[in-house]
Amino acid sequence: MSTVNLGLIGYGYWGPNLVRNFHAVNNCNVARVVDARPERLSLVTKGYPSVQVSTDADDILNDPAIHAVVIATPVFAHYPLAKKALENGKHVLVEKPMTASVKEAEELIALAESKGLLLMVDHTFLYTGAVRKIKELIDGGSLGKVRYIDSTRINLGLFQPDINVLWDLAPHDISILNYLVGQRPVSVNATGVTHTNNDIENIAYLTLNYEDGFIAHFNCSWTSPVKIRMMMIGGDQKMVVYNDIEPTEKVKVYDTGYEHKTDEDKKRILVDYRAGDVYVPKLNTVEALADMAKDFISCIIEKREPVSNNRIGLDVVKILEASNESIKNKGKEVVIR
Amino acid sequence: MSTVNLGLIGYGYWGPNLVRNFHAVNNCNVARVVDARPERLSLVTKGYPSVQVSTDADDILNDPAIHAVVIATPVFAHYPLAKKALENGKHVLVEKPMTASVKEAEELIALAESKGLLLMVDHTFLYTGAVRKIKELIDGGSLGKVRYIDSTRINLGLFQPDINVLWDLAPHDISILNYLVGQRPVSVNATGVTHTNNDIENIAYLTLNYEDGFIAHFNCSWTSPVKIRMMMIGGDQKMVVYNDIEPTEKVKVYDTGYEHKTDEDKKRILVDYRAGDVYVPKLNTVEALADMAKDFISCIIEKREPVSNNRIGLDVVKILEASNESIKNKGKEVVIR
Amino acid sequence: MSTVNLGLIGYGYWGPNLVRNFHAVNNCNVARVVDARPERLSLVTKGYPSVQVSTDADDILNDPAIHAVVIATPVFAHYPLAKKALENGKHVLVEKPMTASVKEAEELIALAESKGLLLMVDHTFLYTGAVRKIKELIDGGSLGKVRYIDSTRINLGLFQPDINVLWDLAPHDISILNYLVGQRPVSVNATGVTHTNNDIENIAYLTLNYEDGFIAHFNCSWTSPVKIRMMMIGGDQKMVVYNDIEPTEKVKVYDTGYEHKTDEDKKRILVDYRAGDVYVPKLNTVEALADMAKDFISCIIEKREPVSNNRIGLDVVKILEASNESIKNKGKEVVIR
Amino acid sequence: MSTVNLGLIGYGYWGPNLVRNFHAVNNCNVARVVDARPERLSLVTKGYPSVQVSTDADDILNDPAIHAVVIATPVFAHYPLAKKALENGKHVLVEKPMTASVKEAEELIALAESKGLLLMVDHTFLYTGAVRKIKELIDGGSLGKVRYIDSTRINLGLFQPDINVLWDLAPHDISILNYLVGQRPVSVNATGVTHTNNDIENIAYLTLNYEDGFIAHFNCSWTSPVKIRMMMIGGDQKMVVYNDIEPTEKVKVYDTGYEHKTDEDKKRILVDYRAGDVYVPKLNTVEALADMAKDFISCIIEKREPVSNNRIGLDVVKILEASNESIKNKGKEVVIR
Repeated sequence: MSTVNLGLIGYGYWGPNLVRNFHAVNNCNVARVVDARPERLSLVTKGYPSVQVSTDADDILNDPAIHAVVIATPVFAHYPLAKKALENGKHVLVEKPMTASVKEAEELIALAESKGLLLMVDHTFLYTGAVRKIKELIDGGSLGKVRYIDSTRINLGLFQPDINVLWDLAPHDISILNYLVGQRPVSVNATGVTHTNNDIENIAYLTLNYEDGFIAHFNCSWTSPVKIRMMMIGGDQKMVVYNDIEPTEKVKVYDTGYEHKTDEDKKRILVDYRAGDVYVPKLNTVEALADMAKDFISCIIEKREPVSNNRIGLDVVKILEASNESIKNKGKEVVIR
Repeated sequence: MSTVNLGLIGYGYWGPNLVRNFHAVNNCNVARVVDARPERLSLVTKGYPSVQVSTDADDILNDPAIHAVVIATPVFAHYPLAKKALENGKHVLVEKPMTASVKEAEELIALAESKGLLLMVDHTFLYTGAVRKIKELIDGGSLGKVRYIDSTRINLGLFQPDINVLWDLAPHDISILNYLVGQRPVSVNATGVTHTNNDIENIAYLTLNYEDGFIAHFNCSWTSPVKIRMMMIGGDQKMVVYNDIEPTEKVKVYDTGYEHKTDEDKKRILVDYRAGDVYVPKLNTVEALADMAKDFISCIIEKREPVSNNRIGLDVVKILEASNESIKNKGKEVVIR
Repeated sequence: MSTVNLGLIGYGYWGPNLVRNFHAVNNCNVARVVDARPERLSLVTKGYPSVQVSTDADDILNDPAIHAVVIATPVFAHYPLAKKALENGKHVLVEKPMTASVKEAEELIALAESKGLLLMVDHTFLYTGAVRKIKELIDGGSLGKVRYIDSTRINLGLFQPDINVLWDLAPHDISILNYLVGQRPVSVNATGVTHTNNDIENIAYLTLNYEDGFIAHFNCSWTSPVKIRMMMIGGDQKMVVYNDIEPTEKVKVYDTGYEHKTDEDKKRILVDYRAGDVYVPKLNTVEALADMAKDFISCIIEKREPVSNNRIGLDVVKILEASNESIKNKGKEVVIR
Repeated sequence: MSTVNLGLIGYGYWGPNLVRNFHAVNNCNVARVVDARPERLSLVTKGYPSVQVSTDADDILNDPAIHAVVIATPVFAHYPLAKKALENGKHVLVEKPMTASVKEAEELIALAESKGLLLMVDHTFLYTGAVRKIKELIDGGSLGKVRYIDSTRINLGLFQPDINVLWDLAPHDISILNYLVGQRPVSVNATGVTHTNNDIENIAYLTLNYEDGFIAHFNCSWTSPVKIRMMMIGGDQKMVVYNDIEPTEKVKVYDTGYEHKTDEDKKRILVDYRAGDVYVPKLNTVEALADMAKDFISCIIEKREPVSNNRIGLDVVKILEASNESIKNKGKEVVIR
């Protein structure tokens, strides 16, 4: 295949960014955009006169000239649309989180495999210069053994009407975590609360427990007066603070650590710590979404696996599903299958 | 009583601050300091030649000329020292947390009441200009109904050898919370991990659950490369960010809120939010410990109740004890008696 | 006139922003873009298929269907292009600084007046929510008498090949200053240095002296490792810090002031100061360039004067021209005519 | 000499810090403190019962048992007190700036040399971990050739009644500059303004011009709503930002630079720049004043020259005296002898 003809379903908040970036990818032709709202489609036409538009997803799903489908709808629609697209032989990119349940995600993955089609999830953060640099630092061993990840991702709004704040914001953290440390958690605990009478948590806290003492914790809120996007990655040699709000100095590497030893009487553990220099690496500043779009198209053409593969997508859904169960059971530990 | 003769037991990290501040209180005479380490006592003598020193706590506890005892030892020693002091008719100020168990705390409170003595806990933060100002804002109604408190209190070290990070750091948050919102939690969930082979958590997370949807969450760590001391207090009218690291602009009041309503079909809850001006009130900059010391001495002389009363001290220990149980039971909900 | 047909000359760094914003203005039709570089024109065609392009400015200047011309070329070309456009009966918007000399600016203004045409300068900052809010605060009297403005506008690059750092960056500060305080300086002093062997200062400092003790000072550099865009506006009642790098809290109003009085012996002046609350007003977040574009088109249609009028544009050039003379004369005071 | 007996004249704002630090120096005995105000002396007695106090400077200057005198009075008194101390054979440490005129400074230096006595100026900043680290970076060559120093040192108050803001604040910047780059300026330009009717500038700007294109600029104010203490040191290889307000990350080293070259036609100078990693070195956190006090005592005992020698002190006064002349002559260039 020399050019991938692309159809996009759902031109809401994220849709324009997707179209703009896929439009700029070599070997990619944005053929059609579908949205139920005519006023959204007129924006497409104004900006991209050559792109066809319509209100019926089947205009994409049933069009044999379209090779690949991008699904940017509310979460509940991911599964039926992706399923039909795969059944019709089309490669699929689905927005995060992949599906509304583990069962759906597993079914889609099996279907894609059986058909030899690419099924990818848009975990955009995996393509940022910041996450790439942190991955490089971890893989190169300079952080030592990673002991914890702690992330705060809070701001005011946008309240989602159908999914809670963990399903909305934590996919970023979970996918980054999964990409950085590889391991999968043994269990999760989650607590949260709703202040909007609709049983959809607007504040929630998620702890991920691992076998070897590694721990991850995510603090998510739609009701913070300030926007914070800060992740700490603590190794036993060095630690990283990743502050996504900073315009340029997003990643800071602290030559900071601690060691424990037993005192003379073998009675107590004494802990020593040190703080040294700080290093702020220069980051690649290419827009992450551009690299994500390129990865999707290249992987179709070259038949390889993307950075943001569907195993990460599935793990995200597994953890989210478990977090639901934990919240509804007052924070009790829920084991991940 | 015109002058309170004071004995201080424990001249470690916090002791010099206590002596310096009590030394400056009118109607207070720092009579004696006790510490098992002669090198610590020589510092007292150098700085305060008039203060007597010795290595035996009984020199204070059995001295009839001493009216009040300040206990600044490791936590496990709070109870036996405070008990003996009260039995010997002395008023007691104990460092936070009050005791190592609820049982001990309740026994001390009962003993103090039966003897008509003051038993106070040094929750210093209740005397800061920042916390006082936030209390004023809440009591004056300008925040509306308070819906959540979220606090991050992390830094590198000082690892405690006998208590975990929640017992070390969360007393600040819990006492502030208790002082600000009054209510007591129904239950707690806590998760945490130890990286130092001594079964003492160096990272821990604590959620406090309340009957009416209010939630509090505390993130405590001794293993962060950066020092963060930030508390958010979210009301349904306004929200406060209290950043204790800021030299002057510690308290920011955001005219920020959100409202929910049902849409036309009564099917969905829609949430609207707004962000407006920010206001940074000027704070009283008197050292909090000076006001705490004054409060202790004045309450002895005037026989009144201090701001940092022992009910707050007891509640702190109740929540900490429950957090232990929750951590050891993998995060399960533990009801507060 | 119901629709203004617009031609734009110069599609360099700023051109795309201009076209995007004029494209979105009601009653404005971006008819043609001219640039000598075909590769720039192909970007126009790709983004705006309906806009005509060519490499010859006369295609705009001689086209009777075009009512208004936007000139976004290097500074030296502003005068000849604007002159021909005005002579041909077209309204003109010229990028800042207006011209390369006072003489040119005065000639253009006289020409526009004699022809009854609009001649406006794009001092975009006058349309920002931040500057508008500060203007409102000053006009409303809450700052008291404004005593000083101090601005630092430094970053790394973009080195201009034809104008020095003051001509590049100070027009922002001077136009804001002029808009905020109205008065004109009596004289200027400027110092600076070149580190690039081309007699074009890359670091320069400019002091503006006023009759009544008001002072303004601008620090401009292309060779700073960090980007700073901070202006302080000191009134005798309150003071403003305008930090343009801040994403949301750009304007902070400090209830800060100082007073002087003579001591008892009338020998010394004693000065007292106070620091109070800080207030961070919410700002209008519409893109400033959008409002600038609207103002240009509306002023053509409604025959009124724009916020960024050409008297401000002329004053900017007067001060810049004087700064050149001062720098070349080792910082000596140069009187403004 | 095994122990230096020290007398201190002037127990105002800085005096307590001096006494506290000299008190802690080995081989130093703070013998007597003189101040005209009895209430200041009672503070000495309270804190240091062993130190003698009196209101007459001659009790120090005429006491043969006193080896060294610290002069911490208003500037005008530095010269007569230091002169008498030197004449009486005592070593002298004088607060910054050294004297109120170049003539006085030169006379004191000549006197000290003829007597073989130490005459040192307390430029405390030369002993900070930050300035030491920057010196190390420059001397080690990692910044390349230093091209500019730009410093902003502004806050609200303390207005001095006898010296202007440059004499009060710029000695810090000038001494650091002198220590870091060694060279002396050819000339200065200064502008400023007074808002307090007393002919004492509360805002002033100082440019230092050098032969080889190096430039330094200082922005000093007592009337800023915010406190800023930021110095930029630009080398042609790397650049440093020294932010003294930061609690720990005071020094940041930017791998930032720019290069110029002539374009193909030899007509224009083109400038290229790059921005790379940032490095934040760990700093020595010993209190600078402690090291300054130690240096004074050690240099007396070991008969060596201090870091903060009187040539730096003299250069500071030369530049300040020239700045006065420039301000009074409307910013004109004043050559440094």
